[in-house]
Amino acid sequence: MIVIAGVQTPEEHIQAIVEVIEKEGLQAHVSRGSDRTIIGLIGSVEPKLAEHLRQMKGVENVVKISKSYKLASRDFHPENTVISIKGVNIGGGELVVMGGPCAVESAAQIDEIAGLVKAAGAQVLRGGAFKPRTGPYSFQGTGVEGLIMMAEAGQKHDLLTITEVMTPEYVDICAEYADILQVGTRNMQNFDLLRKLGTCGKPVLLKRGFSSTYDEFLNAAEYILAGGNPNVMLCERGIRTFETYTRNTLDLSAIPVLQQLSHLPVISDPSHGTGRRELVVPMTKASVAAGADGLIIEMHTDPDNSMTGDGVQSLFPDQFADLLKDLELLAPAIGKTFHTPSAVSKN
Amino acid sequence: MIVIAGVQTPEEHIQAIVEVIEKEGLQAHVSRGSDRTIIGLIGSVEPKLAEHLRQMKGVENVVKISKSYKLASRDFHPENTVISIKGVNIGGGELVVMGGPCAVESAAQIDEIAGLVKAAGAQVLRGGAFKPRTGPYSFQGTGVEGLIMMAEAGQKHDLLTITEVMTPEYVDICAEYADILQVGTRNMQNFDLLRKLGTCGKPVLLKRGFSSTYDEFLNAAEYILAGGNPNVMLCERGIRTFETYTRNTLDLSAIPVLQQLSHLPVISDPSHGTGRRELVVPMTKASVAAGADGLIIEMHTDPDNSMTGDGVQSLFPDQFADLLKDLELLAPAIGKTFHTPSAVSKN
Amino acid sequence: MIVIAGVQTPEEHIQAIVEVIEKEGLQAHVSRGSDRTIIGLIGSVEPKLAEHLRQMKGVENVVKISKSYKLASRDFHPENTVISIKGVNIGGGELVVMGGPCAVESAAQIDEIAGLVKAAGAQVLRGGAFKPRTGPYSFQGTGVEGLIMMAEAGQKHDLLTITEVMTPEYVDICAEYADILQVGTRNMQNFDLLRKLGTCGKPVLLKRGFSSTYDEFLNAAEYILAGGNPNVMLCERGIRTFETYTRNTLDLSAIPVLQQLSHLPVISDPSHGTGRRELVVPMTKASVAAGADGLIIEMHTDPDNSMTGDGVQSLFPDQFADLLKDLELLAPAIGKTFHTPSAVSKN
Amino acid sequence: MIVIAGVQTPEEHIQAIVEVIEKEGLQAHVSRGSDRTIIGLIGSVEPKLAEHLRQMKGVENVVKISKSYKLASRDFHPENTVISIKGVNIGGGELVVMGGPCAVESAAQIDEIAGLVKAAGAQVLRGGAFKPRTGPYSFQGTGVEGLIMMAEAGQKHDLLTITEVMTPEYVDICAEYADILQVGTRNMQNFDLLRKLGTCGKPVLLKRGFSSTYDEFLNAAEYILAGGNPNVMLCERGIRTFETYTRNTLDLSAIPVLQQLSHLPVISDPSHGTGRRELVVPMTKASVAAGADGLIIEMHTDPDNSMTGDGVQSLFPDQFADLLKDLELLAPAIGKTFHTPSAVSKN
Repeated sequence: MIVIAGVQTPEEHIQAIVEVIEKEGLQAHVSRGSDRTIIGLIGSVEPKLAEHLRQMKGVENVVKISKSYKLASRDFHPENTVISIKGVNIGGGELVVMGGPCAVESAAQIDEIAGLVKAAGAQVLRGGAFKPRTGPYSFQGTGVEGLIMMAEAGQKHDLLTITEVMTPEYVDICAEYADILQVGTRNMQNFDLLRKLGTCGKPVLLKRGFSSTYDEFLNAAEYILAGGNPNVMLCERGIRTFETYTRNTLDLSAIPVLQQLSHLPVISDPSHGTGRRELVVPMTKASVAAGADGLIIEMHTDPDNSMTGDGVQSLFPDQFADLLKDLELLAPAIGKTFHTPSAVSKN
Repeated sequence: MIVIAGVQTPEEHIQAIVEVIEKEGLQAHVSRGSDRTIIGLIGSVEPKLAEHLRQMKGVENVVKISKSYKLASRDFHPENTVISIKGVNIGGGELVVMGGPCAVESAAQIDEIAGLVKAAGAQVLRGGAFKPRTGPYSFQGTGVEGLIMMAEAGQKHDLLTITEVMTPEYVDICAEYADILQVGTRNMQNFDLLRKLGTCGKPVLLKRGFSSTYDEFLNAAEYILAGGNPNVMLCERGIRTFETYTRNTLDLSAIPVLQQLSHLPVISDPSHGTGRRELVVPMTKASVAAGADGLIIEMHTDPDNSMTGDGVQSLFPDQFADLLKDLELLAPAIGKTFHTPSAVSKN
Repeated sequence: MIVIAGVQTPEEHIQAIVEVIEKEGLQAHVSRGSDRTIIGLIGSVEPKLAEHLRQMKGVENVVKISKSYKLASRDFHPENTVISIKGVNIGGGELVVMGGPCAVESAAQIDEIAGLVKAAGAQVLRGGAFKPRTGPYSFQGTGVEGLIMMAEAGQKHDLLTITEVMTPEYVDICAEYADILQVGTRNMQNFDLLRKLGTCGKPVLLKRGFSSTYDEFLNAAEYILAGGNPNVMLCERGIRTFETYTRNTLDLSAIPVLQQLSHLPVISDPSHGTGRRELVVPMTKASVAAGADGLIIEMHTDPDNSMTGDGVQSLFPDQFADLLKDLELLAPAIGKTFHTPSAVSKN
Repeated sequence: MIVIAGVQTPEEHIQAIVEVIEKEGLQAHVSRGSDRTIIGLIGSVEPKLAEHLRQMKGVENVVKISKSYKLASRDFHPENTVISIKGVNIGGGELVVMGGPCAVESAAQIDEIAGLVKAAGAQVLRGGAFKPRTGPYSFQGTGVEGLIMMAEAGQKHDLLTITEVMTPEYVDICAEYADILQVGTRNMQNFDLLRKLGTCGKPVLLKRGFSSTYDEFLNAAEYILAGGNPNVMLCERGIRTFETYTRNTLDLSAIPVLQQLSHLPVISDPSHGTGRRELVVPMTKASVAAGADGLIIEMHTDPDNSMTGDGVQSLFPDQFADLLKDLELLAPAIGKTFHTPSAVSKN
């Protein structure tokens, strides 16, 4: 909620308003503009308080803003958040690419893929150890063993690592082995998990719920931020619509919208966003042109035999490398930078 | 997956098929029909096995059924599941009504409402102790204290109780105090929670994810059933569509569809399904006419001051009592029974 | 837009407001309440006028109501509209059932079905002569010939007839042969067609666009009403959602919502709303319980060979007759009346 | 439907199949591959014929393909369609930009805007003369007068013109004055209009229905193609989803999908696709990166006073010119060409 104090409201009235707010156990953020003064309230506001404030001296209006998030909002944090992890900066001007398999299947598999991911120019290795599966009889991941395999592959090939965490009790172990923790689309409103991630000490990539509005998405981020963890990336990964040709509908407008509403970096996931390998390349480029700060892309050396059955949306290593070379061309045209190692020439 | 053995396939061929299946660590359910024999496989089937089975003697066809759930399916369990709790039968011919506030706010509040719920003819008291809230600054429930208050109110007024559980670690305490555990719409695919509920020993009411298909919904139920808990109720509570006049779009076709696909009881939640008090009455009646086995309805003595702000969808006690009297008339026209206490006459 | 004049605004100020409105070529509806006076504007209001009005004497507020429809709104027409056609009253307390095939295929077919529709107790014969088809190579209907066949069958069996009209140029001929003209879901915003129907002299059943909001739906009705035709029925026929198990998602909340926002009769179409024969029976009953004034149901004597391929959602004649007998039981429990001929006993 | 003839089927069997098909009044397209032969059927196939064909000699399979469109399909027309109008080629390697106001409001307005559109480097002037409006009381366009004003402005500034046509009876006059006829989203399935456009002699830009699948969209294009008009452009303009922050959800995956399924040029409309001025720039760039052949963008000299109220999604002239200069940079990075006049330097 926001209290708007009218033109030339004396300081004592502002103070009185702040006191009333704080007496209710809420925080008041005072922003003095050239004429009006705005007092932002953080916390759950009871209707009675709103009514009371509305009648105080100097109050011009009390606006129940739909933005119930504050820490995630650009209104109170105008500069971009840049998340720095071991020399990689996410949310600055450099494109960050996260690549790898849907699931960590074996030490050899993840090691081979890590080498290819690095050679192509990506900075982060992705791979699921704990897998959320629609049905209870599907492959559920390699668990902690998989975590360790991925950490080793990341270290060997000098890549950051990102992996999904599904339940509060596994946050600590995932935070021990991975550089970035990922919240999947089905867990975007798993509030106990979000709270736990607020204190995990590692950056979090939060995927948008497949039917969540921007407002709900930013409120979910707010749970993590409110817990004390400022390093949250927002990830658009496709929403559910009536169109079933694609697995989801990648909502690229989310990129500029989220960047406008929030200061957090925005990542795009064209793999889940389309569910079809042949669409990953054009939609990766479109994501960059829309202003994405980074990408998370599935790549597999043998997609047709991937253990999760998600191979159909994984790029082959060659496609992945070619795509990153294309991004090297595209990035400057959009005001971003991205470089692939010169070793990855096509000849 | 289902293996269809042709007309007059000798028993030894059936046995050979079963052996191959079991050697892969999967279970085989053999159903002998008048001419064909059907062998159902439970478990994740690798493509190679399907290919192998297809070439075995006697095999007419191998069908990758889209129904990846088995225990929830009516195919393997033709009779309705009736869940009996302390003399209340859910899924038989009697309508079951669950009523109460969105949140347990105080001992006095829940006691007063329980008395009204009982007097109106409902059999179950609903009330949230742990509340899933979109934003971190909203009222998050009264927790274990609330659980205890509700258990006492239920006992005093001879009502079963149902409450939502949000995270695996609270399953045990909720199971200690409540008769039925509820999984909310945002947690329908919280797989760790579902697994834990599979062994909790109490019946579970599983709400459909607000953007989940019937198939995903039944797969979520399968997680609980596969854990050993056969007492699952499916609850339609509205889906997210383009229409925003109602909070959700109550998908009443879900009732006959789920009853056709599954043997589990189906409950309707017209309160969340519409989000508007004035629509709860007609949509409750429509739910009954569509064949619902039960209803879960919000009722509050002072909805305009409810602590969750959900009062706008709560019935007043009089409306609730009148609605239940109307159901008494409607139920027989649809082949169901429902009785209100004679004491609740309108004079 | 609505202008609210404050308590005890003198009549001369009201008149001045009305004059300003009429000078802009708009109509003003003055409604005098016990304290405030409300002046409704019909017509497209330019922002400048709103600003001007806001500053006039006596004006308390100028509300840009989202309801851009007026004639369709219950605000200005509190009583239900009852459409009377040759002794059948639609929108009063009697349920009206419209039954028949998707398409008129031959004189013999429509005659046979008309006999069954009448015998079952329905009052209206439905049948398409002009068919909107997704692809250009599908059967496009029997056209004017079909219209004539249906008119004859209706007359012979003493049934009203309803048929779809797809383009302005066919409105006159359809109005000549049918008692009710239907606008299909794809044409709900075919504004030239709607305008033409405003002057056709016959009642119109307007189907909701499969992705149209209530507001857009009532605005479409407004086109017909504004043309001078007061006899419009609103028909809910299912909306497009992410769920594909059913052909559409029948939005039964639309029934009470539309009856609240508008005075026009509301009809439900469970055939298109579900697209599956086995769901038509429960969803018809649910429609009645939700308060529908009537139903439009597909019935075919040989659904598997229907020329449109829509047979999968058509009831068999026996099912149709049994359903109507069930409605005879259900109607009184919901405060409606419906009677089947005693001749249609089940023996 | 497609008939697949097996390996080494003798020519006489192929001929027999073709004869059966043609005897039913359908067309057969025979494509001889290295081993198998494929016979495509155009026209509505009755189930009986499919059954008959399935039993003929040489037939390996009869596939009811979901693609009921043929002429729009890339399967039968592998090369891109390039539409050439007075020296502008749409669907080749050059980006085509269509710019202008939502509605033609006056001769002076359209003349001034045309000058700016031309100076910025666009090739086509857009402007509505007949406007589809949700409610009957909104501004309905300037009609034929507006058509003429736009034609004059186009001629004077050497721009092609595009305008929307809403009903069959206005096709001829629109075709007389405009270079390209546009079908709006609400008319995508106005089949009588589509049929009429099949013979209008002018290229058509067909907008996707806001809730239409790719399959329905291509079937709508098929109506125009089947009428003899090969010059159809497909336009993605946003679909309706649960997200209401944007007016629609611009589905950019549609661009590569439609280019894969069809040979027709694909245009993107970021103005209607987002409904918010500040999103038009990033989503235009994303459209180009996704592979769009062209863009249709609203621009207005005084958007806040536009007569349709759509100004909120119109760019200011400066923004439009800057955007086109950015496209000049972006196009080569994506393998396209686009040039702005050197006169439009920013100084």
